[in-house]
Amino acid sequence: MISEKMRPLVQNNSVIRVMFEEGKRLAGIYGAENVYDFSLGNPSVPAPKEVEQAILDTLREEDSMFVHGYMSNAGYEDVRETIAQSLNQRFGTSFGQDNILMTVGAASGLNVMLKTLLDPGDEVIVFAPYFLEYKNYVRGYDGKLVEISPNTADFQPNLEEFREKITAATKAVIINTPNNPTGVVYPEETLERMAQILREKEAEFGTDIVLLSDEPYRELAYDGVEVPYVTKFYHNAVVCYSYSKSLSLPGERIGYLVIPDEVTDSKDVFTAAVIANRVLGCVNAPSLIQRVIKRCIEMGATVDLAAYDRNRNRLYEGLKALGFSCIKPEGAFYLFVKAPEADEKAFCAKAQKYNLLLVPGSSFACPGYVRIAYCVSYEQIERSMPAFEKLAKEYGLA
Amino acid sequence: MISEKMRPLVQNNSVIRVMFEEGKRLAGIYGAENVYDFSLGNPSVPAPKEVEQAILDTLREEDSMFVHGYMSNAGYEDVRETIAQSLNQRFGTSFGQDNILMTVGAASGLNVMLKTLLDPGDEVIVFAPYFLEYKNYVRGYDGKLVEISPNTADFQPNLEEFREKITAATKAVIINTPNNPTGVVYPEETLERMAQILREKEAEFGTDIVLLSDEPYRELAYDGVEVPYVTKFYHNAVVCYSYSKSLSLPGERIGYLVIPDEVTDSKDVFTAAVIANRVLGCVNAPSLIQRVIKRCIEMGATVDLAAYDRNRNRLYEGLKALGFSCIKPEGAFYLFVKAPEADEKAFCAKAQKYNLLLVPGSSFACPGYVRIAYCVSYEQIERSMPAFEKLAKEYGLA
Repeated sequence: MISEKMRPLVQNNSVIRVMFEEGKRLAGIYGAENVYDFSLGNPSVPAPKEVEQAILDTLREEDSMFVHGYMSNAGYEDVRETIAQSLNQRFGTSFGQDNILMTVGAASGLNVMLKTLLDPGDEVIVFAPYFLEYKNYVRGYDGKLVEISPNTADFQPNLEEFREKITAATKAVIINTPNNPTGVVYPEETLERMAQILREKEAEFGTDIVLLSDEPYRELAYDGVEVPYVTKFYHNAVVCYSYSKSLSLPGERIGYLVIPDEVTDSKDVFTAAVIANRVLGCVNAPSLIQRVIKRCIEMGATVDLAAYDRNRNRLYEGLKALGFSCIKPEGAFYLFVKAPEADEKAFCAKAQKYNLLLVPGSSFACPGYVRIAYCVSYEQIERSMPAFEKLAKEYGLA
Repeated sequence: MISEKMRPLVQNNSVIRVMFEEGKRLAGIYGAENVYDFSLGNPSVPAPKEVEQAILDTLREEDSMFVHGYMSNAGYEDVRETIAQSLNQRFGTSFGQDNILMTVGAASGLNVMLKTLLDPGDEVIVFAPYFLEYKNYVRGYDGKLVEISPNTADFQPNLEEFREKITAATKAVIINTPNNPTGVVYPEETLERMAQILREKEAEFGTDIVLLSDEPYRELAYDGVEVPYVTKFYHNAVVCYSYSKSLSLPGERIGYLVIPDEVTDSKDVFTAAVIANRVLGCVNAPSLIQRVIKRCIEMGATVDLAAYDRNRNRLYEGLKALGFSCIKPEGAFYLFVKAPEADEKAFCAKAQKYNLLLVPGSSFACPGYVRIAYCVSYEQIERSMPAFEKLAKEYGLA
């Protein structure tokens, strides 16, 4: 019954399901509090109180037909204008509502842009390690994913290999900073060099190459580190934003695309993206939550970053002290730890003996490492430390 | 910049935009109350009061992390179970939560199913007149849309032509009852005959043919007419439901798929559909509104059907009295009126002289007719009658 394209996804899915079932099985045997599940990138900090306030205010102050009804497929004009002005204030950009397209989260925003841009065989470049779902998105529009190998020194993008792998068929590049799974943030000089390479290659091939910046973790940056705004560095840059992490609303599916005027054929690209959003079946981003986003911006709502930061420091320091090796993440809520043996899946299996659930780096096209999601309770991190210690001892680290 | 597939959609879109701008232009000249816009299928009846109650109750009684967080990609189990039990009570079916997949409206549900099922070149049959967006959905997965010509006698499906056009490449059939744009409801005998033909053709070709029932208008049926439940007639039937019209929540993008156990490889199809929903970028249906749907079902919430019914009767009787010809719709909120001249676009242009905005039937693959959406205020219908009268006189009808 199932299409050829979907069949491998169904097979692969059962592997993930086995992992999930294993977690439940362990919790059943040892008790949930004695199983240390670090596998999921699910916010552990609740939505800020402004979200509920904004819902109540919207219901009280706005007309029900307006709040739950159709709007322009691109989203409510006033919501888009509020987002544009907020970006302009924060980043010195000059967007207007006609640059903002409300989407069903960043995943949908990426799909919308790939459907808008890709012809069969077009190449999309990603930097390993990366969120493997990108491959499925690109395949959906018959594009070809081109991987740049990981730079394990500091997990900044390998720009020499990037330069070599850009071809006349390169239509888009996906970046994700702060990064899942490494927590790395690309500084200005990285984006500047990347943009320079893209401009050179556009000139060399006479093509347009779109830089898609997947930004669900933009607001999750620590130690005052700045996350530069990509549209300031490159003309063909499109931002795919999500409120899933920045307001802890992952279930609500709300985000937006920024398509700046500087993008080639910007107006047509925007129109095509609105149509792609419609034709993919989303039609528009959920309406009530759009209204809520506007009010949350006006109220200056943010999630409790300090909770993630505390987790980050505790886990990073704890694992370093035990002899594990990893770079200190500057953003997102993941630690990307070098496995003490080459086969990181074997390492994950050993970790599981101590009820530690970690994700192998090969799930991010980067074997030899594991991802530890610290969007969990602080208590889980504390309780898990003896288990990490036993694991370290098994490898002669601690 | 834009992909080959999207380019014609962008061109076509500007035609629609011109119509929309024309409506605004007329309103600017004559005043909004003197422009009779019957072009949009946008609910004119507000969401029932239970929707707001359900939102408030959810915020008060349920945990914020749960309400706005990730759930199973298929949707909250308890929401799906409530829907399944409600369907079972109403239609004598025997669904469980594992047959229900929450989607970002019916349009997204259709996309999910087409992505799940279609290989390039697979054929999808539709009955004219039909919602032209189906063509874009099918093309998105490289399927081929096959049209059955309209049966203008009563707008029931032309089943003889249907039988002839089913081939070994037929993978799916889309039906929409109550129908947009005709308002026709398919009775039991129609579905029985359609199912019989499908079973015969499945046996003849050794294939599976999935009947996709697009049901945003299921609850909008008048005069006590019954809308039979398709899964009772055919084993490979999948329902694509939406609350856009039944609870007047079109902006919220909430609906579900029903994938019965009787569908070939049902469990795999369900799994593939959940993955398709994820990979298309929706990930899951919006979370808060899922919770609200459960409470609305428990409270027995329905929209004010009487308001639509009043509009239907007033407009139908009014146009008949003026000499226009059309069948009386049994469901949805559209009247499909025969144009008094062969070129229905010329008719629409003449109507526009009287500030009447109607949609030509060629936008539904059925020239010679126009769609009049009566999901407007009763007052608009009243006020528009003199304009319809002038139009009728121009054709020598009244």
